[in-house]
Amino acid sequence: MTAISTQTILILGAGKSSSYLIDYLADTCENNNRELILADLNLELAKSKLKGKPCTKAQSLDIDNEKDRLALIEKADLVISMLPAFMHPIVAKDCLKLGKHFFSASYESEELRELKPEIEAKSLFFLNECGLDPGIDHMSAMKIIHEAKSKGDEILSFKSYCGGLLAPISEDNPWKYKFTWNPRNVVLAGKGTSQYIEKGDLKYVPYHQVFKRTETIHFDRLGDFDGYPNRDSLSYRKVYGLENIQTMLRGTLRRAGYCKAWDVFVQLGLTDDSFRMNLPSGSTLKQFLNSFLPYHESLSVEEKLAEAIPDMDFPTFEKIQWLGFFGNRKLPKTTGSPAEILQSILEEDWKLYPEDKDMIVMQHLFEVQTKDGIKKINSSLVAFGEDATYTAMAKTVGLPLAISVDLFLEGKIKLTGLHVPVIPEIYEPILEKLEEFGIRFIEKAQL
Amino acid sequence: MTAISTQTILILGAGKSSSYLIDYLADTCENNNRELILADLNLELAKSKLKGKPCTKAQSLDIDNEKDRLALIEKADLVISMLPAFMHPIVAKDCLKLGKHFFSASYESEELRELKPEIEAKSLFFLNECGLDPGIDHMSAMKIIHEAKSKGDEILSFKSYCGGLLAPISEDNPWKYKFTWNPRNVVLAGKGTSQYIEKGDLKYVPYHQVFKRTETIHFDRLGDFDGYPNRDSLSYRKVYGLENIQTMLRGTLRRAGYCKAWDVFVQLGLTDDSFRMNLPSGSTLKQFLNSFLPYHESLSVEEKLAEAIPDMDFPTFEKIQWLGFFGNRKLPKTTGSPAEILQSILEEDWKLYPEDKDMIVMQHLFEVQTKDGIKKINSSLVAFGEDATYTAMAKTVGLPLAISVDLFLEGKIKLTGLHVPVIPEIYEPILEKLEEFGIRFIEKAQL
Repeated sequence: MTAISTQTILILGAGKSSSYLIDYLADTCENNNRELILADLNLELAKSKLKGKPCTKAQSLDIDNEKDRLALIEKADLVISMLPAFMHPIVAKDCLKLGKHFFSASYESEELRELKPEIEAKSLFFLNECGLDPGIDHMSAMKIIHEAKSKGDEILSFKSYCGGLLAPISEDNPWKYKFTWNPRNVVLAGKGTSQYIEKGDLKYVPYHQVFKRTETIHFDRLGDFDGYPNRDSLSYRKVYGLENIQTMLRGTLRRAGYCKAWDVFVQLGLTDDSFRMNLPSGSTLKQFLNSFLPYHESLSVEEKLAEAIPDMDFPTFEKIQWLGFFGNRKLPKTTGSPAEILQSILEEDWKLYPEDKDMIVMQHLFEVQTKDGIKKINSSLVAFGEDATYTAMAKTVGLPLAISVDLFLEGKIKLTGLHVPVIPEIYEPILEKLEEFGIRFIEKAQL
Repeated sequence: MTAISTQTILILGAGKSSSYLIDYLADTCENNNRELILADLNLELAKSKLKGKPCTKAQSLDIDNEKDRLALIEKADLVISMLPAFMHPIVAKDCLKLGKHFFSASYESEELRELKPEIEAKSLFFLNECGLDPGIDHMSAMKIIHEAKSKGDEILSFKSYCGGLLAPISEDNPWKYKFTWNPRNVVLAGKGTSQYIEKGDLKYVPYHQVFKRTETIHFDRLGDFDGYPNRDSLSYRKVYGLENIQTMLRGTLRRAGYCKAWDVFVQLGLTDDSFRMNLPSGSTLKQFLNSFLPYHESLSVEEKLAEAIPDMDFPTFEKIQWLGFFGNRKLPKTTGSPAEILQSILEEDWKLYPEDKDMIVMQHLFEVQTKDGIKKINSSLVAFGEDATYTAMAKTVGLPLAISVDLFLEGKIKLTGLHVPVIPEIYEPILEKLEEFGIRFIEKAQL
C-alpha cells in the first residue's frame, strides 16, 4: 500500500442506519488500497461498528466543532454524511471548500442546488438521494421509465409506494407497527398538504384528510397495505422526466387498518404539535384523550369517542384500546405538545425488541401506453431485516450508498456535478449489485 | 382658547372603523379646548371624515416614515392608534419615548407588556382592548363578575360569544353573511387550536374540528346563531380574576347553519393558506373545488362532494351552490393560496352594499353559585348599523375608545400604567355613556 494512491473514505455518523454501509465499505478497504474513517460523537459506538477491521479507524467528532470537522474532512477523498438532514448543507459546503466528493441518502435540498455551479467548476461528484426512499425508488422506477421510453411507449400513470414496517413474524400488536425509524417523523407523518395529479387533475389533500385518502396496495404472500399520499408527488414529474404524465402519486405504506386508526388521533388533535400541554402529573392516557373530546355530562370517554368518530369500527377501537387509552395507564410524559405526549406513549408500546425483524416494502404501479394497448406494470420489492441492528431499513438505505461509493472509487461512475441516481450510469450497476444482496424487484406486467 | 391648556388628540388611521370615533371626538373639541389631528396616508379620506369641524385638522402621514411619525406624535398629548395591529407596538414605543398617552382597541400584546415598567415610571396611561371584542365584552362581563363577587357569590361558568353580522333586513343570501370586517380574518377564522375549560376539564379543539364544536345561542327576536370556540379562552381566567372557574369559553357567532357549510371548505382544504396554487386562467369555481375532491372516473363534482361530506344537508349544499361552485362561474383569481382564492370569490359575493346594515350581537352566559342556589344570567347586546359607513362595528369599536379618551382628558379616569378596561373606574362611566348611544345589555337572570 503506497500512501499516495490510498483513497480515504470518511463516514460521518455511526448511528442505526449506518450498519450495512459501514460493513460494506470496511470489508472492501484492505484489498482496494482504501482507508475508512468512521467519525461519531460516540467513539465507542464507532469502534464497535468497525469491529477492528483492517484499514479502518474510529474517530471522535463533535460535528458542531468546525475546526475539528474541517481537519477531518481534509484527510478524506470522499465524505458520506449519515448525519441528520439539516447538517448536510454544512458538510457539503465544507467538502466543496476542501475539494472532496460528497455522498448522502437524503433529499437534495435547495441549499445543495445552490452549490451546483461550484461543484461542477471544481469537477467534484456530489450524489444525494442514494438510499431507499429516496434512492432505490428512483433507481428502480427510472429503469422501467427508460425501458418504456426506449421502446417509444408513453407512461400514462405512475404510482409509487414505500413503507418501513415489521416483518410478519414480528407483527405482534394490533397496529402491526413498531418504530423502525425516527419516532417523531412517524407521529408527524402526513403534516402539510399532500399534492398529486390524477388523470390530469391536480389534487390537494389537507393533513386532516390524508389518512382517509388511502388506496389498498397488495403484495403477494404479504397481503394488503394502506397507501396514503406523500406531501410532494408533483416535483417528481420533472426529476423523472415525466412532465406531461396524467397520474403521478408517491405514497407511504402502513399495514391495512393502520391509517383508519391513526386518523382517529389526527381527527381529535392528538398529533397537534403547535402548542404545549401541561397536564397534572399522574394523568392517564384516558384523561389525555378526554381533553380532545367534547364535554358530556354523563357519557364515558369510550362513548364520547364513538360519538366523535361515528365511523369507528372494532379493529380501530381495538388498536386504541391496546395502547391503554381506556384503562388507568399513566402518561409517560405530561408536558409537551400533544404529538410529543403521544410519541412518549408509542415509544413504550412500539419499541422494537432486539429479536424483532423489520421489513421494507416498495411497489411501483405503472400504466404504459404501448403500440399494443395499455400495459400495467407492477414492480415490488420486499426486504426483511435480520434483527434490530441489521434492519431491512439499514440495509436498503446503506447498501445503495455504499455501492455507489465503491463504484465511484473504482472509476465505474465517472460523473462530476450534483446528481441523484436517475441516470443509467449510476443506477444500473447499483441495482445489479443490490440483487446480490437479495434486494430485487419482482415485476409483473399485464396488457 | 389659550395655547397652554389645549389638549391635542392624534388619531392615526381614518379607515372604516374610525367613523364614530372621529365624530365623537371631533364634536367635543370646540367646547373642551381640544384639538384633534387625524392622520392617514390618504389625506382626502381624513379630510372627508373630519367634515371641516372646528379645532380639527387632517394630516397626511406615511406611518413607515419614522421622522414624520415622531414629529406628529410630538405635537399630541394623546395618541389613538387605529392602525393594523402589528403597528401598535411601534407607535406605543414612540409614545413612550415622547411621553404621550396611548389608546387602542386592539389586544394588549406581549410587546406592550414589556413596556409596562417604563409606562409606569413615566406616569403615562396606556389603554388597550377598549373597543368591542376586546372591549365592551370585558367591561360588561366585569360588571357582572364584580357584582357577583361583591355579594360573595362564586362564578361557576362563563361563556361569552360575539359576532359581527348582518342586520336581518340585509340577510339576503343563504349564508346570511357579508364582510363587515377584514375578509382575510374571516376566511382564516378558527385557525390554530382552540382551548377552553368545561366543568374543570381542559378542552383542545384542532382547526378541522372547530366548526363542528358549535353551540346554539339564541337571541330574543333574532333567533338562533352558531357559536364556535375562539382560539384562546384560557388566558381570560386571569384577566377576569376567575382563576378557579370550572367553565370558561369565549366564542364567535355566525348565523345558524353558517358553520356547517363553512366546515365543508375547512374539511376539503379550501381555507388552506400554506401553499400556492397556480390554476390555469379561466378556471371555474367547480374546477377549484374538484382539486380538493378524490378522483372518480364517472361521478360529477356534486356527487363526489356528497361522498366526501356524508352528512351534508340541503341548506349546506344550497349555500355552496349559491356561491357558484356547481356552475361555470370563473374564479376571480387563479393564483395564490386556496384561502386567498376562496377570499377572492367571497369578496364578490359577500360584498356589503352601501345600503346594507350590519349588526353586532354579544351574549354572556353565566352560572353563579349564590346562597339561594345556582343563578343563570344571560346578558345580551344587539346593535344595528345605519349603513355601510356608519356600521354597528364602527360604532361599538369606536365609541368605547372615544369615550375612554374623553373621560381621561376630563380627568375622570385618573389611572396611570398599562391597562385593559376591567377596572370599575374605567368601565363604569364608559358603559353608562354607551347606553346613551343605545349600546345596552339586556340581562335575564333565573335561579
